[in-house]
Amino acid sequence: MLIPIERKARVPVAAQIVAYLRRAIEAGRLAPGAKLEPIRVLAKELGLNRETVATAYRELETLGLTESTVGRGTFVLGPRGATPQGVGWAAGGDERPFVPVFSRSSEAARAFPVARVDYTAPADAVRFERLIPDAALYPHEPFRKALNSALAKGGAALYDYGDRRGHEGLRRALVERMARSGIEADADDVVITAGATQGFAIVARMFCDAGDTVAIESPTYPWAFATLAALGLRAAPVPLGPDGIDLERLDATLARGGVRFLYTMPSFHNPTGISTSIAHRRRVLEIASRYDVPFLEDDFEKDLRVRGRGAPPLRALDRRGLVSYLGTFSKSLFPAARVGWLFTPPAITPAALLAKRTMDLTTTPLLQAGLAQFLREGGYDRHLRRVVKELGARLDCAERALARHLPEGSSVAPCEGGFLLWVTLPEAIDSAALLPRAKAAGVVYAPGEHFHPDGRRSSSLRISVAQPGTAEIERGARLLGEVAREALPRGKKRARAPEVVHA
Amino acid sequence: MLIPIERKARVPVAAQIVAYLRRAIEAGRLAPGAKLEPIRVLAKELGLNRETVATAYRELETLGLTESTVGRGTFVLGPRGATPQGVGWAAGGDERPFVPVFSRSSEAARAFPVARVDYTAPADAVRFERLIPDAALYPHEPFRKALNSALAKGGAALYDYGDRRGHEGLRRALVERMARSGIEADADDVVITAGATQGFAIVARMFCDAGDTVAIESPTYPWAFATLAALGLRAAPVPLGPDGIDLERLDATLARGGVRFLYTMPSFHNPTGISTSIAHRRRVLEIASRYDVPFLEDDFEKDLRVRGRGAPPLRALDRRGLVSYLGTFSKSLFPAARVGWLFTPPAITPAALLAKRTMDLTTTPLLQAGLAQFLREGGYDRHLRRVVKELGARLDCAERALARHLPEGSSVAPCEGGFLLWVTLPEAIDSAALLPRAKAAGVVYAPGEHFHPDGRRSSSLRISVAQPGTAEIERGARLLGEVAREALPRGKKRARAPEVVHA
Repeated sequence: MLIPIERKARVPVAAQIVAYLRRAIEAGRLAPGAKLEPIRVLAKELGLNRETVATAYRELETLGLTESTVGRGTFVLGPRGATPQGVGWAAGGDERPFVPVFSRSSEAARAFPVARVDYTAPADAVRFERLIPDAALYPHEPFRKALNSALAKGGAALYDYGDRRGHEGLRRALVERMARSGIEADADDVVITAGATQGFAIVARMFCDAGDTVAIESPTYPWAFATLAALGLRAAPVPLGPDGIDLERLDATLARGGVRFLYTMPSFHNPTGISTSIAHRRRVLEIASRYDVPFLEDDFEKDLRVRGRGAPPLRALDRRGLVSYLGTFSKSLFPAARVGWLFTPPAITPAALLAKRTMDLTTTPLLQAGLAQFLREGGYDRHLRRVVKELGARLDCAERALARHLPEGSSVAPCEGGFLLWVTLPEAIDSAALLPRAKAAGVVYAPGEHFHPDGRRSSSLRISVAQPGTAEIERGARLLGEVAREALPRGKKRARAPEVVHA
Repeated sequence: MLIPIERKARVPVAAQIVAYLRRAIEAGRLAPGAKLEPIRVLAKELGLNRETVATAYRELETLGLTESTVGRGTFVLGPRGATPQGVGWAAGGDERPFVPVFSRSSEAARAFPVARVDYTAPADAVRFERLIPDAALYPHEPFRKALNSALAKGGAALYDYGDRRGHEGLRRALVERMARSGIEADADDVVITAGATQGFAIVARMFCDAGDTVAIESPTYPWAFATLAALGLRAAPVPLGPDGIDLERLDATLARGGVRFLYTMPSFHNPTGISTSIAHRRRVLEIASRYDVPFLEDDFEKDLRVRGRGAPPLRALDRRGLVSYLGTFSKSLFPAARVGWLFTPPAITPAALLAKRTMDLTTTPLLQAGLAQFLREGGYDRHLRRVVKELGARLDCAERALARHLPEGSSVAPCEGGFLLWVTLPEAIDSAALLPRAKAAGVVYAPGEHFHPDGRRSSSLRISVAQPGTAEIERGARLLGEVAREALPRGKKRARAPEVVHA
């Protein structure tokens, strides 16, 4: 029997044999009672070892398609036309491929540009679009040792589901860190999450039923509004200006009623990189408090401050229990832990735990124990010192290089830390339309329209210095300047701006 | 200043000082311009080291409540009554605790008994309710070594978000294992999930909008219907008989239309422990296929077979791409990995990946690499041999002991593996009403009503042999028999049934 075998296929060879013979039996090409070739014969024909063929034959028998008798061989039982109920599976004969119908919310989420974006670019392109830390800076060996030591110490007790809130040592360590920023919290009101992504989903689940509205900044993290869509929720975008969310528009949006919570990133905002003042934060709290609208404060790059002292988190200013605070190790340490934390006001904690229960029960206690150990022994702080220094050099370099290379009329939003810089090109340029040319030239960025839920045309773009080092940043800024200049309407094309040297 | 400090509180001492002084300033008890006690003085008064007080003072300054001048001291700036906008936070004076309003779906999920159950019992009680493997059997040391070696080999590359589908080595290993059960799949159509819990949530998200209906077995895993409620979905319960889901009722339910998918556990069903025949599986597939209703097949205890060969999974019999297949390491290995797998028909994979993206981006690549290594080096198979042998002994013991101790008119559903036995007591007994007495007597179980979405009265109960060893099982069965007998109406109380010795 010539069974076509693809040795390099992902499907194991034995499974390929099973599939072939099953189709042959079910299509009637191998009739009931037919004898299959002996294992050694088929193995020889196909150039396989006997155990592979024997495995396949055992599977066919498990499937009820054949029967083996020692000494006689393997026989086809038939296409299973007769079952006790008198209606067989094969007798139904239905092999039409099933065409799935997905939920409207699932289709809506898929429609956003961020779910369809293609950042394919030449291998040597400067990757300004990637908001994933530089692997060259990961403290992977010290972390591996901390993890290994924590697991050796913790023993079997660590291998259960673990505390529903998360590893107690880690929660206590986080409470101590957050106290430095004026956040008072009890470790019982910390819920360890599968990254900031899950923290967002938990808050959405707690407060919203399908059709409900969530106020977001615009621009904002695009998976925020894509996730809201996937949950069947509506986003009420409030414009973000150079000082943060527009206060009058926020007031007007909340005054209309029906907003279940406000999602905001007051520090190192994604995509603009800006941080708001303490006065602005107080105003935001005052407005939301007036309408009794709770917050989700996303502080995803908290530990990546390179300049200034920064204003306290909203959570530190909140005296009413309005603010749930979200943090993560994904940007400041590495993403692979998939560990974030939600500081919930006590009245909210039980609902957050219930929502998490329906999502994944708990986050792995193993990595949490490793992280607790890594924090305790100072590994995280040592890593932060190294990474913040490098980040400072990259941001300085990027700001200088962009000032030097971008066409006149461009601007870069002020930035005190984090990986992100928000570049606004001259109004005539559509940053999404420019992207293919930029990629071809060797520089990739995230176009501004991705960050607005209405996908509006934008001359802005997001640059991340997470991955490229200073030399690459310099090259990327130069290439970006070149393609931007090329894209200017004829009259506005100018020679390169004079070089500005920053101190 | 006498600041009340609780040294044993979870809130760090410095944060307690900050909180106290902040309240004093905001309430006006410390007026603007007031000088705080010097650090060394306050430290001495409170019996703290100076650094703790200095930390607190720095935080107060970060919060904008005080100002320090070297050589002069720390002064209260005031309750922040004046901001640039002219309306201060403290001026608003709103300290009413925020009373959160949760979503209707979140409240609905909370209403199920499983979300409120209290299994508190005497310390030496036999824990028949726990479906968490016995920690004494965890291969934690071999796994730790496999993980450590995989991380050492993988290096920094493992510390990113990782492949959206999951670690490729692990997916390939799972495809090979599943091929032994007749499941043909490409590793590209495997999505690694945060346990079976997330697999369920992914399928629900893909196929359902709020208000949609999902067919489930009744009884079934109670977090299935609690999760549906949390997602704003409806459950259409189809009764489960001794042979599996009732086929006529399934047909009638699907014929009414509107069912988005069917959630089923054909092997080692939770809570009944039963496994269905190949004929029954073909009928279920045939019925669902007729109405084009896709499946989620939950095979959460697949590797815990102790008797018989078992029928192939629905997924192995499906020729239309109807069946998404769900597995997990949580019961056969340990729960702490929080790793499961969803085998999606190719037409469904992209939607599953999108749903996962909105939940937690990816599952930690670190533990997946460790699991791939543990599978590759045979550690998982070695563990299974040990655990299946022990499980066989426990199930044999439980069946014998229950037959010996339960009152006449009781029955135990047939079981081929997994941790679960479904006990039905005489009709007169309400297993939920009996539970407090059973707990007081020293045996805990999961009452049958928890497993029906309508919470109906039930004389059945679920026993798990995951945690107790044979001696405890014997004791638990005896105690259960005693309290059940006590609960029988007067006329029906009998002496202990004659001992039956099983071979």
